[in-house]
Amino acid sequence: MNGEDMTGKLTIVGLGPGGPELTTPAVAVAVRRATDLVGYDTYMKRLPALRPDQTVHASDNRYEIDRARHALSLATAGRDVVVVSGGDPGVFAMAAAVFEAVETGEPEWRELAIEVQPGVSAMLAAAAEAGAPLGGDFCAISLSDNLKSWGTIEWRLISAAQGDFAIALYNPASTARPDQLGKAFALLRQHKSGETVVIFVRAAGTPEAKLTIKTLAEADGTEADMRTLVIVGAESTRVIPRVGRAPWVYTPRSEGAAR
Amino acid sequence: MNGEDMTGKLTIVGLGPGGPELTTPAVAVAVRRATDLVGYDTYMKRLPALRPDQTVHASDNRYEIDRARHALSLATAGRDVVVVSGGDPGVFAMAAAVFEAVETGEPEWRELAIEVQPGVSAMLAAAAEAGAPLGGDFCAISLSDNLKSWGTIEWRLISAAQGDFAIALYNPASTARPDQLGKAFALLRQHKSGETVVIFVRAAGTPEAKLTIKTLAEADGTEADMRTLVIVGAESTRVIPRVGRAPWVYTPRSEGAAR
Repeated sequence: MNGEDMTGKLTIVGLGPGGPELTTPAVAVAVRRATDLVGYDTYMKRLPALRPDQTVHASDNRYEIDRARHALSLATAGRDVVVVSGGDPGVFAMAAAVFEAVETGEPEWRELAIEVQPGVSAMLAAAAEAGAPLGGDFCAISLSDNLKSWGTIEWRLISAAQGDFAIALYNPASTARPDQLGKAFALLRQHKSGETVVIFVRAAGTPEAKLTIKTLAEADGTEADMRTLVIVGAESTRVIPRVGRAPWVYTPRSEGAAR
Repeated sequence: MNGEDMTGKLTIVGLGPGGPELTTPAVAVAVRRATDLVGYDTYMKRLPALRPDQTVHASDNRYEIDRARHALSLATAGRDVVVVSGGDPGVFAMAAAVFEAVETGEPEWRELAIEVQPGVSAMLAAAAEAGAPLGGDFCAISLSDNLKSWGTIEWRLISAAQGDFAIALYNPASTARPDQLGKAFALLRQHKSGETVVIFVRAAGTPEAKLTIKTLAEADGTEADMRTLVIVGAESTRVIPRVGRAPWVYTPRSEGAAR
């Protein structure tokens, strides 16, 4: 949409889960082209070396909406702004914050050229570390109750269990919410078999990736930190044991007969 | 895991939704390194120019499990095999077929070095074309009843509606199943507001991408083909109108209060 108008441009990108080998070329191009880069410190540190003419607006600001407004103001002033997320920007990340800021903000922000550049989301990288646990129908649920009530989260978990979806759990734990995952497991145990496969993948898509496989009955909410993605299997999710190596976990595509 | 044993290697890759600018460098490296590439014709045509010493095993075989077995046999014979999917290989694609073939196949297949290289899935690319419709909790459901019953699909759709997830619908239509999407919309209309936002994204992640926005009340199942990804919004999914341009669609991260 370059040249559509005299104002600047805003591109919301996802770096993917780990190193540059999982960042799409389209995102790398957008980062090189940007005059201004806006994002959370953790993700800004993963950017390649930038040029002196590129301005970095890093922040540890937990209020994504404020970062989004700042980025929109820069773009309105004519800058070529890139908003940086990890994973995919549309999955529990900056893209929704930017559009929320647009809807509730200055009328001129609606005239901007805004583009979302997708990336490999954390759940896809975590699934790849284990095999194919998201190979059938699945859900993604954030356990963060910063922006929605715990009641909403519980009701989503129950619906996902009733539908026998595999469930990817984002934001399973934080220092502010150490008990969320344990509460989620306790709730899921009321609605799913204790034999259901649960996997914990820490630092998916990086050389330090660590995979832990449990049953729902034995899964412990304290095993996850903010770099962990948890996947609770469907009833049909299977573990393939291997001699002397980590098992593979997958959900068959054909599972209707299970119930 | 190279060199772990004397047998070959099998890497299951996802090319992403469109052109090479959405294929990760890790996948490009695996494709260049491969001695043998196995996949469905449609995806094989998207590969870059291959070398004369690379063997392509393209097929229009609809039985993914047979392709998976063929790939596993090649790897067991010592070849460096890449199995090619579009999008992400773990989402309604070849990874689950390979692991299903492993579990039900030759014991020696469990000794192979098998790696899954994630990609940008079709739903993430489709969401990016529209804005951020998957910005809150969401589900992915395949409407193909090749491998599961239509009853299972209906029960999943109802569960997803009851949980007020945004819903990405894969395989919304085919020549063999022209009515599936219309049936899905009719069912969802019984469980969700007619005002719910529905988007159709054809050829997401390519220059020919086409976005259509409807309400659930007016959504027509014949508007999708096999290159279309359909996203049915949550109750909170919003449309941001713009003067003279396509609207943006997003799902706010804060939606608990909606019910």
